Amino acid sequence: MIRMLYLLVKPEGMSVETFRTECLRHYDMSHDVPGLHKYEVRLVAAQPTDTHVPFFDIGPVDAIGECWFENEAAYAIYMASDIRKAWFEHGKTFIGQLKPFRTASIAGNDTAG
Amino acid sequence: MIRMLYLLVKPEGMSVETFRTECLRHYDMSHDVPGLHKYEVRLVAAQPTDTHVPFFDIGPVDAIGECWFENEAAYAIYMASDIRKAWFEHGKTFIGQLKPFRTASIAGNDTAG
Repeated sequence: MIRMLYLLVKPEGMSVETFRTECLRHYDMSHDVPGLHKYEVRLVAAQPTDTHVPFFDIGPVDAIGECWFENEAAYAIYMASDIRKAWFEHGKTFIGQLKPFRTASIAGNDTAG
Repeated sequence: MIRMLYLLVKPEGMSVETFRTECLRHYDMSHDVPGLHKYEVRLVAAQPTDTHVPFFDIGPVDAIGECWFENEAAYAIYMASDIRKAWFEHGKTFIGQLKPFRTASIAGNDTAG
């Protein structure tokens, strides 16, 4: 399973309610995207700073998205898909900044989530 | 379900192999922590910068951790636990910087992962 995690920052001036509505719409659209096994998006509810190790201060983040792909072949289908491209166009309407991570299995994460 | 997500940065000078070993040890220790429904940790394998919206540049991140709790009562048990405190002490030995997020259900994420 290939997993990509994304930090999303809403555009300056966009309300939390509009951002939430567009996140939900992005989730609904995800069901039609070829090659995409699963998509998840959740809002950031709190960002504690009282950490037991030094705090990593990256500024505010508004949502966390995640994509699952069965394998590289599915990922290639996803990348080539016009529906995926339209999905990304929708992303441009409500994502101000984006930080992607591709993650590697180490422990406890071999399922589809 | 309460979910917390963490960005982990390894201490300066620590090798990737040592960091990976300690992440795995932290995962193994997690099974004994009261109130903790599930813990997951995965290494960051790639951090693409060619995003379709403006890139959110936060510098390098080495791992992503996640904690699941059944409810607030379980979370309170977790926070009060000496085993949890010892687990955090282990965290201090291999986590250079930490960014926590508490996330809120919006779509596709109502399961235990």
